[in-house]
Amino acid sequence: MTEKIKLIAPRLPRGFEDRTPGEIAAVGTMIDKIKAVYERYGFDPVETPLFEFTETLGKFLPDTDRPNAGVFSLQDDDEQWMSLRYDLTAPLARYFAENFETLPKPYRSYRQGYVFRNEKPGPGRFRQFMQFDADTVGAASPEADAEMCMMMADVMDALGLSGQYIVRVNNRKVLDGVLATAGVTTEEQKLTVLRAIDKLDKFGVEGVKLLLGAGRKDESGDFTKGAGLSPDQIAPLLAYVASGDVTEGMEKGSNAHVVATINALAGLIGGSETGLEGVKELATIFGLVQASGFGDRVVLDPSVVRGLEYYTGPVFEIELTFKVQNEKGQDVVFGSVGGGGRYDGLVSRFRREPVPATGFSIGVSRLANALKLTGNLQAEEPVGPVVVLVMDKDQTAGYQAMVAELRRAGIRAEMFLGNTKNFGKQVAYADKRNAPAVIIEGSQEREQGILQVKDLVAGKLAAAAITDNAEWKAARPGQFEIKRDDLVSAIQNLLSQP
Amino acid sequence: MTEKIKLIAPRLPRGFEDRTPGEIAAVGTMIDKIKAVYERYGFDPVETPLFEFTETLGKFLPDTDRPNAGVFSLQDDDEQWMSLRYDLTAPLARYFAENFETLPKPYRSYRQGYVFRNEKPGPGRFRQFMQFDADTVGAASPEADAEMCMMMADVMDALGLSGQYIVRVNNRKVLDGVLATAGVTTEEQKLTVLRAIDKLDKFGVEGVKLLLGAGRKDESGDFTKGAGLSPDQIAPLLAYVASGDVTEGMEKGSNAHVVATINALAGLIGGSETGLEGVKELATIFGLVQASGFGDRVVLDPSVVRGLEYYTGPVFEIELTFKVQNEKGQDVVFGSVGGGGRYDGLVSRFRREPVPATGFSIGVSRLANALKLTGNLQAEEPVGPVVVLVMDKDQTAGYQAMVAELRRAGIRAEMFLGNTKNFGKQVAYADKRNAPAVIIEGSQEREQGILQVKDLVAGKLAAAAITDNAEWKAARPGQFEIKRDDLVSAIQNLLSQP
Repeated sequence: MTEKIKLIAPRLPRGFEDRTPGEIAAVGTMIDKIKAVYERYGFDPVETPLFEFTETLGKFLPDTDRPNAGVFSLQDDDEQWMSLRYDLTAPLARYFAENFETLPKPYRSYRQGYVFRNEKPGPGRFRQFMQFDADTVGAASPEADAEMCMMMADVMDALGLSGQYIVRVNNRKVLDGVLATAGVTTEEQKLTVLRAIDKLDKFGVEGVKLLLGAGRKDESGDFTKGAGLSPDQIAPLLAYVASGDVTEGMEKGSNAHVVATINALAGLIGGSETGLEGVKELATIFGLVQASGFGDRVVLDPSVVRGLEYYTGPVFEIELTFKVQNEKGQDVVFGSVGGGGRYDGLVSRFRREPVPATGFSIGVSRLANALKLTGNLQAEEPVGPVVVLVMDKDQTAGYQAMVAELRRAGIRAEMFLGNTKNFGKQVAYADKRNAPAVIIEGSQEREQGILQVKDLVAGKLAAAAITDNAEWKAARPGQFEIKRDDLVSAIQNLLSQP
Repeated sequence: MTEKIKLIAPRLPRGFEDRTPGEIAAVGTMIDKIKAVYERYGFDPVETPLFEFTETLGKFLPDTDRPNAGVFSLQDDDEQWMSLRYDLTAPLARYFAENFETLPKPYRSYRQGYVFRNEKPGPGRFRQFMQFDADTVGAASPEADAEMCMMMADVMDALGLSGQYIVRVNNRKVLDGVLATAGVTTEEQKLTVLRAIDKLDKFGVEGVKLLLGAGRKDESGDFTKGAGLSPDQIAPLLAYVASGDVTEGMEKGSNAHVVATINALAGLIGGSETGLEGVKELATIFGLVQASGFGDRVVLDPSVVRGLEYYTGPVFEIELTFKVQNEKGQDVVFGSVGGGGRYDGLVSRFRREPVPATGFSIGVSRLANALKLTGNLQAEEPVGPVVVLVMDKDQTAGYQAMVAELRRAGIRAEMFLGNTKNFGKQVAYADKRNAPAVIIEGSQEREQGILQVKDLVAGKLAAAAITDNAEWKAARPGQFEIKRDDLVSAIQNLLSQP
């Protein structure tokens, strides 16, 4: 009779996941490449903790109609509310304000780390995920925004995605001008319009039209309330969204396309001063982009608005343009892997003077996934250790001494530490670990001062060529004998073979 | 009249901290060195998320008499409790149980990441801190424990701490035998005794004696209730704690010391079978340790017990032996930077069969701090970018093009993005960024197709040698002229100089 103890189910809460050695190595390689670009652009790392005071973070998440507003929060000892960061921008604003006196200005920093969203998880939608950001704080000019867009392009090139992406750029100020012309004035209505336009990729022009008007019913029958605009108000907004569409004989990203789009935008902002400022900023940005040879990769696209509330000027998005199949088996472009924009108000929440800032964020898992699909990121299994088998249980001190010798020579090695009764299981373990070789010392070998080495890589190749079982046993492919004293040099020799 | 808006104070909750570029680089270097040792020992990385179900983690923290038991917890959408991990061991147990069928057994893994304690923060005591662990799951033999101790020693050597540390080893089973002999039987009393002995370094033998008896009053007058043992029960426990003390003419860590200590322990366990098992395991461990040449660095010390409840066999601790000054200006040894032990019951909470496991954890910040004190870890400021100054605001496209050229050649470079009115401020910025050089192009230079380069490193050296202001102005130390077309080669040349 065995005692019944209630077992705990070994599982994770939804929206969280473990990472394997292959994934850790692959993402590590990707991150190192991104870091190299950020550093070449003059950015230095900084790291903030995962918690901040809730009031520090503010409420800038899109779609936060759920009770705890998308953020994981809990109360401190002192009854103060703390939250896990939901992005890396709000903590940067706090960091900059806190260290205002000592930081160089403008302050360029990059930050990598996990962020948390208390949202309903789904496919590719996690509650903990990694972001990798770069920001310039204290730089008001569009030159700083232009640099962000070029850096995003250089990051994509460094990852081997040349020709498979575009950086799309727009300016919130232009949209503000168009909204003023259309008579959209309340902050709430503006935000609804913003989020409707942000859904263009997802729902198309017709969907956006519904969201700007009475509302839109999705396939499941769920109804999303619209901005309630009249047809007269909707028309200029749709014209605005379409103003970047390429006319015949014009290449997207060409100077002619930029000029034509900027002219179209200038015609849609009416007399709005903010709108004009936005148009001028776009002209400056694209002047720099083209002078620096990024014109083919950084393009003007008025349909880009970004969902976050805190953007105040230029906004940008990296779109991967290659096709993938969606859940329904349809070909769709891979889409956004990151974006950002100017957020001049975020630091001012802490300091009285205006502190302009611009930056962008890369979604690390999503980008890693894209790189896997394009063959730019291999999740390779690590090469395993040389395994010293345990043939006699009372000789482990001797086996361990062999392992220590190998390790001292810088060779990955271990003694088998499981149940040693079954020789086959020991070899199977070595196989599973992707071990290059196993070392065997039974009592006979010990008496003669020799070791058997089983070269698992050569063995597998040879075994594949041998079809007869008796032949296999006679040949013992990949197995050879060495002197005990030659252990290190023999293994070094074996590992150096291609 | 300015509008009064309530500003938010830019600060962090207590017990959390930001990390600067120098710290990030220094800790990164340290972690890479530790990883290299773990991998040489046959361990592979794995990463689990920061949240687990609360029941997955269990309650194994010492000193958890506070309401939320030292852990940050909150409720999921489904009303289930989730917690932020407080160590990297409990999540590993869940991970191993969840992936039992596919993982190699024994399973060797290392993990690095932040853990959280909902505790009162203090000097050197944080609510978010980094641990770096290695564990072998599915290995029952003391050989696995011995390997952990040797790996800890090799990690310390790899970090340059040779001769400045010892790995102290003990076995909980021996203590269990001594407790049985002393008539301590309830789990609660055992735990109190354990934690009393764990305080030996802090309070000395007299303090431990009080904690084993009625209790101890500290300097502030706070009283800690003791285990309530009688003098007859306390005596063998104190003898046990002292059994590793070195007698005259015997070197700690020598074979003679190990033999003498093991004999002393054997005499204190009475007829306890568990105790005997513990003594035998220690004998095996030290046989391996000495055969592999670690006898001087891995020593037997019965006073090591470790505060965590889940340990079931061998326990170990890395102690740094060099002296530092404490808050009171007294010389004390630096002390523990990590430790671990065998925890055979932790995985069994998820699976019916027994799953033996052993591992250890390094406190990353504390170890980094130790390395700084011993001069083994320099927190160097990164070398800054070449800064292209903005002499004419309408020429930024040209300046940006220079920056793009430099970056394409792999040179760290940026255009100054702050307020450009003041030339001095631009140079001061470059200085603060530790820039090697600034590039100057005014309208005259542009007409002639030349640039001025200010070598800030050479300039500082030269300026130090010039005492006269007029002489300085005439010499303009470190400044020279190049052709615009030679920008990249001139800067490459400047950066290659020692």
